[in-house]
Amino acid sequence: MQTRAALLAHARDTLGAMRREGRYREFAHLEKLTGRFPVYRWHAPQGVKEVTVWSSNDYLGMGNHPAVLEATVKAVAEHGAGAGGTRNISGTSPLIAALEAELASLHGKAGALLFGSGYIANDAAISSVLDALPGFWVFSDAKNHASMIAGMRHAKGATRVIWKHNDLADLEAKLAAAPADAPKLIAFESVYSMDGDIAPIHAICDLAERYGAVTYLDEVHAVGLYGQHGGGVSERDGATHRLDLIEGTLAKGFGVFGGYVAGDAELVDFIRSVAGGLIFTTSLPPAVAAAALASVRALKQDNARRERMAERSAALKAALDAAGLPRIKAPSHIVPVMVGEAELCRQVARRLLEEHSIYATPINYPTVPRGTERLRLCATPFHTDAMIAELIQALRAVLPAHRASLAAE
Amino acid sequence: MQTRAALLAHARDTLGAMRREGRYREFAHLEKLTGRFPVYRWHAPQGVKEVTVWSSNDYLGMGNHPAVLEATVKAVAEHGAGAGGTRNISGTSPLIAALEAELASLHGKAGALLFGSGYIANDAAISSVLDALPGFWVFSDAKNHASMIAGMRHAKGATRVIWKHNDLADLEAKLAAAPADAPKLIAFESVYSMDGDIAPIHAICDLAERYGAVTYLDEVHAVGLYGQHGGGVSERDGATHRLDLIEGTLAKGFGVFGGYVAGDAELVDFIRSVAGGLIFTTSLPPAVAAAALASVRALKQDNARRERMAERSAALKAALDAAGLPRIKAPSHIVPVMVGEAELCRQVARRLLEEHSIYATPINYPTVPRGTERLRLCATPFHTDAMIAELIQALRAVLPAHRASLAAE
Repeated sequence: MQTRAALLAHARDTLGAMRREGRYREFAHLEKLTGRFPVYRWHAPQGVKEVTVWSSNDYLGMGNHPAVLEATVKAVAEHGAGAGGTRNISGTSPLIAALEAELASLHGKAGALLFGSGYIANDAAISSVLDALPGFWVFSDAKNHASMIAGMRHAKGATRVIWKHNDLADLEAKLAAAPADAPKLIAFESVYSMDGDIAPIHAICDLAERYGAVTYLDEVHAVGLYGQHGGGVSERDGATHRLDLIEGTLAKGFGVFGGYVAGDAELVDFIRSVAGGLIFTTSLPPAVAAAALASVRALKQDNARRERMAERSAALKAALDAAGLPRIKAPSHIVPVMVGEAELCRQVARRLLEEHSIYATPINYPTVPRGTERLRLCATPFHTDAMIAELIQALRAVLPAHRASLAAE
Repeated sequence: MQTRAALLAHARDTLGAMRREGRYREFAHLEKLTGRFPVYRWHAPQGVKEVTVWSSNDYLGMGNHPAVLEATVKAVAEHGAGAGGTRNISGTSPLIAALEAELASLHGKAGALLFGSGYIANDAAISSVLDALPGFWVFSDAKNHASMIAGMRHAKGATRVIWKHNDLADLEAKLAAAPADAPKLIAFESVYSMDGDIAPIHAICDLAERYGAVTYLDEVHAVGLYGQHGGGVSERDGATHRLDLIEGTLAKGFGVFGGYVAGDAELVDFIRSVAGGLIFTTSLPPAVAAAALASVRALKQDNARRERMAERSAALKAALDAAGLPRIKAPSHIVPVMVGEAELCRQVARRLLEEHSIYATPINYPTVPRGTERLRLCATPFHTDAMIAELIQALRAVLPAHRASLAAE
């Protein structure tokens, strides 16, 4: 067989099908501008213009924080650009060790372990835990992130049971149906990224205790944003001590890059010692660790920023509701506006960008189920009332017009 | 079952066994010092002291290059610390697009795709290709890196065949034994990281052509270092056009962070569109992309630096041979010194560090097979004759003494 020809034909067919279904991803070239967040420069084929971004995961604008920028520049001047090795091969900067200590403390845990991303943290930590004991059963919330599912799939022999999203009765029924003597892990998120709803952490921990399960909580959309020190929803709810492993990111609320898990010292040391995704990869640059450390420290004592985000988020939701725009109601800072069809969703996003200088990411399958395509908005502390008013006007102009044109076809 | 107690007991047992077998990894805290490379500051429990590092993968010292540092500082000032989203969710900086274009050009390919690391690039690209056609057979060199093996394991249904390291007869026998109508991929590296030997790229491509296989070449230990423009061994050997996908890293020869694949435009676009490890993860910070771009551009026209590395490497090898020290003979810049036993290897490295202010990473199982534990040395353009002399003296002091003490036990 001529593999090359077959592979290229398959690539062309797949890309063609994606285009026809309106789910071919074109990455907009967006230039972040320090000090002007959330205004970006959009580099389009037809030229460059400024746009307001409503879909950044730099939820608190920490990527612009003076202390974070200063820490980066200082660390680059002192330690250069890259780490130059894996953690084992000369890549463990004291800044990385300091960041791990800070993250352990943030979550009230004895240990924390830094990874290249939250994706790798989930993949490596979950698969390492599930490989630790024979016959593991993992109970996974139906809306868990792709990286958690990757960790479960990559484990060698665990049984995966999917429970209905945030449904305690279903979780309990499935725990009860599993063998009593099997080791069990409950894996879930605090804030779900595409719907914006929040898990009942204490109730899930109650079930974990009743059935002898360990708990793994993904707080990537919550760390920095919730809790008195930015420790996430688990801190806000006073549930930190009930969770075995808390996973987080430094790339969203903290505005930098990288991911981590925090937990019992020996459990974290075990993951450190066996996880291929940690041992065989270059560690984060010292300057990235320095920036993240500055961000975590600054946010520990910056409740004003968290309150401002909550207030802006409430203002966005109120404005959408007053305009009768179809948002998915949820308690977190994530505000999905339903569109419901892939090609329309893509067109709405394109018109917002081209005609209204507003960037809102169209979220399509496989990130969300088909038929629930949406725009995903977040108000940061830096989104003004004027920006909200412009957004509402633009959505009004773009959403109904497209629904009409779709109906006419 | 009380999973928590069982899990912690397993963690303790595993860590205990690793300690007993001398393969428990303790990460030395080493502080890179801009402008003083390869001198680092070692933060030990007993205090801080300066050491010469012989095990950095910043092979050319590009992590200290003024253009690289300048590009980082400029990009941080202009674009902040983090990307703030995935490539799809507002995370595609024009700097990332420019870097991808530069990398495609470096390898004479139409497309290139950036990942968070070389590990993820291998994992995502290999699994995406193998999942593209039913009944794929992948022919994997026995010494391929863990991340390539991860990509093969994570593919849904490919048949994996391991051929003897760099053994063309064995590869051909295995290709001939596979079904003629099955799609085939040959996956291999150019420079093998732990032995320092180099693959016969043209001869492997000959076999690929004969049996209709596509080729995947990992050049992570070669990009920046070999070829007239730093395009790796495939450029040096004039074989670039014969390879379907070339994978590289920005974290070693280029001294920064991140990984990539380069190849046919549609194949790269296909990987971009289906790889979970790309879609669901925050993109690299703009400043990291800027640093990498500056490094790739600088190295394209800096043959003097490559020649200096080759000359320093030859000097190191000659000095080891003159002293009768047991190195594994290999043509690349990687110079392994054999120790052969895990606990001894760890002790030798510890004594080098504590008594001689020299850092050389002990390489243990599972990175290399048991019984072949070694120190892995690399001479960068910045290792002086005096440093080589100190290293030789220290190895002489530490290696025989330890062999004697082992023999006496």
